[in-house]
Amino acid sequence: MKKLVAGVDIGGTYTTCALVDEFGKIYASDKFKTTDFTDFSLFVARIKDSIIELSGKLKEPHLPEVIGIGAPNGNYYTGEIEHAPNLIWKGKLPLAKELSNLFDGIKVIVTNDANAAAIGEMMYGGAKGMKNFVLVTLGTGLGSGIVIDGNIVYGHDGFAGELGHIRVVKERGRTCGCGRTGCLETYASATGLKRTALELMSQTEDPSKLRDTPASQLTSEDITLAANAGDLIARKTFTETGEILGEALANLVALISPEAIFLFGDLAKSGDLILEPTKKAMEHNLMPLWKNKIKLIISSIDSELAPILGASALAVKELQKKYAFFERRRVV
Amino acid sequence: MKKLVAGVDIGGTYTTCALVDEFGKIYASDKFKTTDFTDFSLFVARIKDSIIELSGKLKEPHLPEVIGIGAPNGNYYTGEIEHAPNLIWKGKLPLAKELSNLFDGIKVIVTNDANAAAIGEMMYGGAKGMKNFVLVTLGTGLGSGIVIDGNIVYGHDGFAGELGHIRVVKERGRTCGCGRTGCLETYASATGLKRTALELMSQTEDPSKLRDTPASQLTSEDITLAANAGDLIARKTFTETGEILGEALANLVALISPEAIFLFGDLAKSGDLILEPTKKAMEHNLMPLWKNKIKLIISSIDSELAPILGASALAVKELQKKYAFFERRRVV
Repeated sequence: MKKLVAGVDIGGTYTTCALVDEFGKIYASDKFKTTDFTDFSLFVARIKDSIIELSGKLKEPHLPEVIGIGAPNGNYYTGEIEHAPNLIWKGKLPLAKELSNLFDGIKVIVTNDANAAAIGEMMYGGAKGMKNFVLVTLGTGLGSGIVIDGNIVYGHDGFAGELGHIRVVKERGRTCGCGRTGCLETYASATGLKRTALELMSQTEDPSKLRDTPASQLTSEDITLAANAGDLIARKTFTETGEILGEALANLVALISPEAIFLFGDLAKSGDLILEPTKKAMEHNLMPLWKNKIKLIISSIDSELAPILGASALAVKELQKKYAFFERRRVV
Repeated sequence: MKKLVAGVDIGGTYTTCALVDEFGKIYASDKFKTTDFTDFSLFVARIKDSIIELSGKLKEPHLPEVIGIGAPNGNYYTGEIEHAPNLIWKGKLPLAKELSNLFDGIKVIVTNDANAAAIGEMMYGGAKGMKNFVLVTLGTGLGSGIVIDGNIVYGHDGFAGELGHIRVVKERGRTCGCGRTGCLETYASATGLKRTALELMSQTEDPSKLRDTPASQLTSEDITLAANAGDLIARKTFTETGEILGEALANLVALISPEAIFLFGDLAKSGDLILEPTKKAMEHNLMPLWKNKIKLIISSIDSELAPILGASALAVKELQKKYAFFERRRVV
């Protein structure tokens, strides 16, 4: 019988649960609204119900051995969600502990979205076989999962990987949700792209299709479409976004010397529009020893499936650790 | 019988060899001029002679089981010194291989100076028991040894940790030995400190004791002495240096979330003069979640002994890995 793991992706709006095998094949999945639960414990109970129901649907019904969860501000060390700005429950939420208790002590592993995506990329995507790489998520914000020697870097407290909050503009930098100014994610993210488009529209009166959409409705897809249609302001928006991102990535390379950097998320869907200026700026800023050696790649994992695959991969990785341990004991 | 390791510190001018135990106690040591050897193989043979001679002097003479070497541009993966600007031999030098051959296959481990210092700090200094920290060497240049989960980060190619070459000034940045401009080490290092003093002297005609020393003779000690005597330009030199360093360290924290950052080397000897402005700027630039949580510490390891202790610690760590492996096999 094939052993499955459970992957859970907790988003601000929806939560998805799935049973997945070690190759990333999804056997059963379920989706419900995160926002339907004002009480966190009821939400956790709903996850449990979902996993039990999915397990019952299998040809040979069995509960997963490990549950992996990707959640905003999820902390691998504590198993808690800590002060997630886009969830309705505030403070520290003991997610792993509560869910594990409901399953009589089953192993539950939690991490944040970007780390889960990086593990997914390592298990099922372009980072297969790589030991040192970084995955950068370019969505509403900018997150990153840093992998060194085959393991996610969690740091001393579980919060490593805040590439979005390195400060790249020191004077008159954009205000950031973290309370500071000039953070990378205020420039290089789907939101940052929009802000740059607005800034460029303010600097000239050059015609642009983007001027016909209210700022509140402008999306990174709109800017992508306009750029592909030759809109000069839209194109310049991508160039400037890539320049700032590429400079920051060159600094990241100097610190950890990865084999590759993967771009993922809404903004990454624009493909070469973001890849080319980013690569150009990164190369321009790299030390000679790294020039033309660091792969910059758009993630090949389906962005719809990525969160759930990432969460499952987290569980698979934990399971592999366990079996590697037994394997070691048996060898002697 | 106590098993000793050999530590070798290769500097631009001198090379030191020593026999050291796992607690950092030096049993015998020898020093000779690196520059006396125009032929690299003769230099390696001299290291061998030195270790054999030292081994013979022990109460119970024995050869070390592992040799650890700290060398400029030393690469842990390849065991080579690669294009070290301050050594007379050019290109890639197969140091580990040549020395190991002279000893019938003894294990030889090579890394660069900053990584060796970080391992020394972890074994014998303030980082004892820490799993995630960074050691920053502030000498002629700026180097760093990044430790994650108890291991040095070498990256994909062995060259990780180039904190000195993140670009911190984008416009009109200072020229750097690496061929680019605006690198952190052109501001935050003993050399950077001097350059900042000169810049400040150029900006006003305010009196300063530093104006009485030719630029070619000015040292970070001179600036330290002047600052301690109340010289305003010297004090401002430290403030500005600390500001740039502290900002960069805050960005480093966002990426890898270390427990502590250690400052080491000539500039670190100035103590609070560099520590305080660096800490202030780091705290100012940290995300709220890290404020007042990251220790910033002057390394407590004797700077004269540090290189040789670091090199020995590298060997001890390798030995521990080996015994941990046997230990694991024995347990079962």
